[in-house]
Amino acid sequence: MIIALKPGVSKEDINQLIADLEILGVKVDSSQGSSQVVLGLVGDTTVINDDALRANRWVDRVIRVQEPYKRANRMFHPLDTVLEFKSDQKAAKIGGDFFAVIAGPCSVESRQQLVAVAESVKKSGAAFLRGGAFKPRTSPYSFQGMGCEGIDLLVEAKKETGLPIVTELMEISQLELFEDVDMIQVGARNMQNFNLLKELGKSKKPVLLKRGMASTMTELLMAAEYVMAGGNSQIVLCERGIRGFDNFTRNILDLAIIPALKKKTHLPVIVDPSHATGLSWMVPSMSKAAIAAGADGIIVEVHNDPEHALCDGEQSLMPEQFNDLMNVIRKYADIEGKVL
Amino acid sequence: MIIALKPGVSKEDINQLIADLEILGVKVDSSQGSSQVVLGLVGDTTVINDDALRANRWVDRVIRVQEPYKRANRMFHPLDTVLEFKSDQKAAKIGGDFFAVIAGPCSVESRQQLVAVAESVKKSGAAFLRGGAFKPRTSPYSFQGMGCEGIDLLVEAKKETGLPIVTELMEISQLELFEDVDMIQVGARNMQNFNLLKELGKSKKPVLLKRGMASTMTELLMAAEYVMAGGNSQIVLCERGIRGFDNFTRNILDLAIIPALKKKTHLPVIVDPSHATGLSWMVPSMSKAAIAAGADGIIVEVHNDPEHALCDGEQSLMPEQFNDLMNVIRKYADIEGKVL
Amino acid sequence: MIIALKPGVSKEDINQLIADLEILGVKVDSSQGSSQVVLGLVGDTTVINDDALRANRWVDRVIRVQEPYKRANRMFHPLDTVLEFKSDQKAAKIGGDFFAVIAGPCSVESRQQLVAVAESVKKSGAAFLRGGAFKPRTSPYSFQGMGCEGIDLLVEAKKETGLPIVTELMEISQLELFEDVDMIQVGARNMQNFNLLKELGKSKKPVLLKRGMASTMTELLMAAEYVMAGGNSQIVLCERGIRGFDNFTRNILDLAIIPALKKKTHLPVIVDPSHATGLSWMVPSMSKAAIAAGADGIIVEVHNDPEHALCDGEQSLMPEQFNDLMNVIRKYADIEGKVL
Amino acid sequence: MIIALKPGVSKEDINQLIADLEILGVKVDSSQGSSQVVLGLVGDTTVINDDALRANRWVDRVIRVQEPYKRANRMFHPLDTVLEFKSDQKAAKIGGDFFAVIAGPCSVESRQQLVAVAESVKKSGAAFLRGGAFKPRTSPYSFQGMGCEGIDLLVEAKKETGLPIVTELMEISQLELFEDVDMIQVGARNMQNFNLLKELGKSKKPVLLKRGMASTMTELLMAAEYVMAGGNSQIVLCERGIRGFDNFTRNILDLAIIPALKKKTHLPVIVDPSHATGLSWMVPSMSKAAIAAGADGIIVEVHNDPEHALCDGEQSLMPEQFNDLMNVIRKYADIEGKVL
Repeated sequence: MIIALKPGVSKEDINQLIADLEILGVKVDSSQGSSQVVLGLVGDTTVINDDALRANRWVDRVIRVQEPYKRANRMFHPLDTVLEFKSDQKAAKIGGDFFAVIAGPCSVESRQQLVAVAESVKKSGAAFLRGGAFKPRTSPYSFQGMGCEGIDLLVEAKKETGLPIVTELMEISQLELFEDVDMIQVGARNMQNFNLLKELGKSKKPVLLKRGMASTMTELLMAAEYVMAGGNSQIVLCERGIRGFDNFTRNILDLAIIPALKKKTHLPVIVDPSHATGLSWMVPSMSKAAIAAGADGIIVEVHNDPEHALCDGEQSLMPEQFNDLMNVIRKYADIEGKVL
Repeated sequence: MIIALKPGVSKEDINQLIADLEILGVKVDSSQGSSQVVLGLVGDTTVINDDALRANRWVDRVIRVQEPYKRANRMFHPLDTVLEFKSDQKAAKIGGDFFAVIAGPCSVESRQQLVAVAESVKKSGAAFLRGGAFKPRTSPYSFQGMGCEGIDLLVEAKKETGLPIVTELMEISQLELFEDVDMIQVGARNMQNFNLLKELGKSKKPVLLKRGMASTMTELLMAAEYVMAGGNSQIVLCERGIRGFDNFTRNILDLAIIPALKKKTHLPVIVDPSHATGLSWMVPSMSKAAIAAGADGIIVEVHNDPEHALCDGEQSLMPEQFNDLMNVIRKYADIEGKVL
Repeated sequence: MIIALKPGVSKEDINQLIADLEILGVKVDSSQGSSQVVLGLVGDTTVINDDALRANRWVDRVIRVQEPYKRANRMFHPLDTVLEFKSDQKAAKIGGDFFAVIAGPCSVESRQQLVAVAESVKKSGAAFLRGGAFKPRTSPYSFQGMGCEGIDLLVEAKKETGLPIVTELMEISQLELFEDVDMIQVGARNMQNFNLLKELGKSKKPVLLKRGMASTMTELLMAAEYVMAGGNSQIVLCERGIRGFDNFTRNILDLAIIPALKKKTHLPVIVDPSHATGLSWMVPSMSKAAIAAGADGIIVEVHNDPEHALCDGEQSLMPEQFNDLMNVIRKYADIEGKVL
Repeated sequence: MIIALKPGVSKEDINQLIADLEILGVKVDSSQGSSQVVLGLVGDTTVINDDALRANRWVDRVIRVQEPYKRANRMFHPLDTVLEFKSDQKAAKIGGDFFAVIAGPCSVESRQQLVAVAESVKKSGAAFLRGGAFKPRTSPYSFQGMGCEGIDLLVEAKKETGLPIVTELMEISQLELFEDVDMIQVGARNMQNFNLLKELGKSKKPVLLKRGMASTMTELLMAAEYVMAGGNSQIVLCERGIRGFDNFTRNILDLAIIPALKKKTHLPVIVDPSHATGLSWMVPSMSKAAIAAGADGIIVEVHNDPEHALCDGEQSLMPEQFNDLMNVIRKYADIEGKVL
């Protein structure tokens, strides 16, 4: 951390500031330039409050050289984190050399729908089943998901197909219902629900953490850090599109965050092309672009009857479309040296 | 709601679609243009699932003519909602002809700090005291607020000054601690925490609902609709800046949403210039702009020692700066016919 | 300018880099912290190429402490720039204690229309007449303005009313037509048309420079610097809304840029509420917010028959609406100590 | 185009509006719903002025069903546009089954630099040489390009290597210098420089049109329509990143625009990963993502000495890095059935 002081600061004020900072456990080097004094802080600067520093009357600028996250930082944990799941599929892993395909309907709607989709995506090569039981909907008058019953149906589909299941948690009190869920999804709208993140830090369940609609890369990593600070480092990050000024897609899929995240963190990174674009005909090209950009997986909506889907039908692939996509994904995975 | 169908749709398909829609309780007018068929829906279209419609193979475009919110809609409730609070201040009302000034420190830090600030802002003319006990912080390593103890100190400050108190709730389970809190703040990051909104709908407490960092006006109103659908219509909306591409301010203060909201809804609208800009020297000009734009109030951070604030010191006014601001605000309120 | 080097850099490499930088005329202080070396540059760093520096293999971070603009910088020119115009109006000045109101139709459409509007806005108190002769339209099939004929009509209206005229230049070759124009407008889409800016630098005409739709404050000031570097410092900056993710207004009016610009530069700053919002019923509240935020003026569209306007009718005020607005603006100007 | 009228409109007003519209050459169907009248317009609605319509006192909403562009519209020209260039390379085509690789330095700096880079990129498989002679720089104090001399050097490099050359035009008056240039680049900042676009419409030269930093897809296509309306349909569109709220990349690369554009227009679409990210280490992954997403080519910066580049060194690949990238691109092209 570098602190540039304003011209005219007295020696006493500099020494006072250095003393205040060193109490916090960092070492401070002061360097007198010809126009201004610059302080360099060494040590664990995650404890320093940037805001308070900036409010100091003698501080001109505060520049963080080190990232504000530690546990999620690849600098301190160079090896890729790889999550392993019990499954009869060969590749129920996420991270490292694996390319994880998570597929299923937006919402769980019925036993019949879910099992049909699950069997179909498994046959096409998906390693995980997704499906929403608790649904965050913009309108209170929209279908809010089947709730506990949806969780039960997911667990049944898991038993029948052997696919690990991924579903969204919206509130801490729902946690006890998620015992048989393999990975808990935190939705984009909850990425900075810090109380939820803290609670998931105490859990041992893998967490699929979606990037918020207007979250920076650093904020996403700080959200992961909240979970990790609690003791749970089983986290998969997910790019799902950010808010933009145009409307030809629902959101802007920010694929450059993949190489950026792979550099900054050891956590796996996957992509949700369905929510990012909101349009099923774009899902294949964006899925291919995701693997080409270095993603560790994709999470894709598949529905056997999109026209009658209770949620997000416009963005769901038909099972045969998903099968075609998987055939191309395998070729891309070969080039990228990824195990599907 | 208007639905434009694709060219080439058969009479049978049109009739099927009309039948599917009329089951939901709306009336459908079909009109055959020379190039395409257009359906007009009349009745309560809030029950219609736009997504499913768009996924229909014969649907070209879906256009909502009516807003998707009812209870928050000024069309159905033309009169301004005015919230009243018990207070020894003359103007502890929000909405209508009142201009509500809510002031206090970002975080509650000590009894001494809070009471000193409370007395000072009251003297300057603030009608409400704000202060954070539970703080949503980007980093898990930052000060997270004093928690329950902070709430106790707020209640004490209320007793001493008579000012109604406003503080943020981060999680449903904290609700029982808020019995003596006068208005519950929902932070920007929780604007679409739908479970929290539903729970607040069952409460009788006034809710201060902050706009999310990337939320549209309609999404903000739908968040209010969630609370209102539960039976609680004591809601104050708050513009606090949205995310933008420049960084000379922390966020972009979108003041045009004030006249837009005043047209669309009967709920009061206030502005938070402190979080919007992140810079104390901008707070006076943005506060004046807020009242000029038609706001029903402001919520401002005031701290007696910003340099040592545990949170957001850079954006807090000193008590004397706040007092100067209030002197100008009174002149603006006179022009706008608002009671301070 | 501060340059933090990567760990492990050798003494020779540091010395080489310092030598390379000092050739450019700056002085370099090197300071060895315990973890990294930090260079502090003193002198005119506007000549330093940040990009090349960042590409250097030993450079970790480059931080500009000084602004990259000089002529537009208030630090070097603390006094407000005030532009004076020949006029029979008392207040044909922009900047300092003056509040300049520029009003008129979006496009010049006919002699009758223009003179009627000009006389009406003058009567209400506007000090300048605006009107587009060359129109930047998104579609090649839309009305592109009356061109030279429009300029002639503006000059006639100026003769009849005594109001100085402001109109947009779209291309260098049009410059000779602008001899009798009092202030040349550079539109948002041309803010970074650097060849146009250079040419205007050679002119002696005042320039009204509109902020680009996605321009940062620094980019706006660098555009002004282009004109000033050529020798012309008669510049008025104009906030006209930036692109955002919502669509209840055409653009987002970023009023916080007013105090920010007033701090950074000595140039006057005005606001265009008509283009910012695109909605005439929002123009009064945003005009009042502009003066409250510290603007030096507004530029407002007024049309005597908005329904038949060939351009932007939806955002034009009727003359009587403009007159009402002026009556309130005068009260605000009184409070702010501005001369109308 | 669909126009929904406000409730309460009289029969006379409806008939007047229909008459006004039919004068413009479109046919109007009126349909009386139970709550409002809806007009459907058939014919060439590109002549209709949406703004004027919206300003009409009886118009509630205006919805364009048809796109506002004709010549660029795939609906009317279903076959891909393919541009052919004279070259000794086998694949100097852009569009259709071809994948065009355009490479070279950001700025032309010297004969030696340019020829060395040109020969190297040719050897690696690039089919076009890029290089800037006129440079749009944010600061008037930065290197502004070699100008005419740079064009001369490009033409020499073309003679030596046989590669067609692409370079940026900043102003109409430069056009005569571009006689031997094979494709004229219009930079992002000039995408809505309508006078420049009109002039290029009269030229017969291929145009590389870059998307503006905050331009919608429709605005990009309307910019192409400006050129096409003048008679020149040799246009290549280029996605080069849009402005966003984060800063880990210079811009946000919006790859979803590729499938969207390929659906809407017959014009080829390429991607500039160098300017989009601003970071050379991201260029390979974003180049692969571009071809995976369906792009017709890439334009990449390559420099033999990025540390001493006079412009954008941080984003340039070294020749050997570019060679490695081409080896992977060939594999991707095979899967996608593209000819390199």
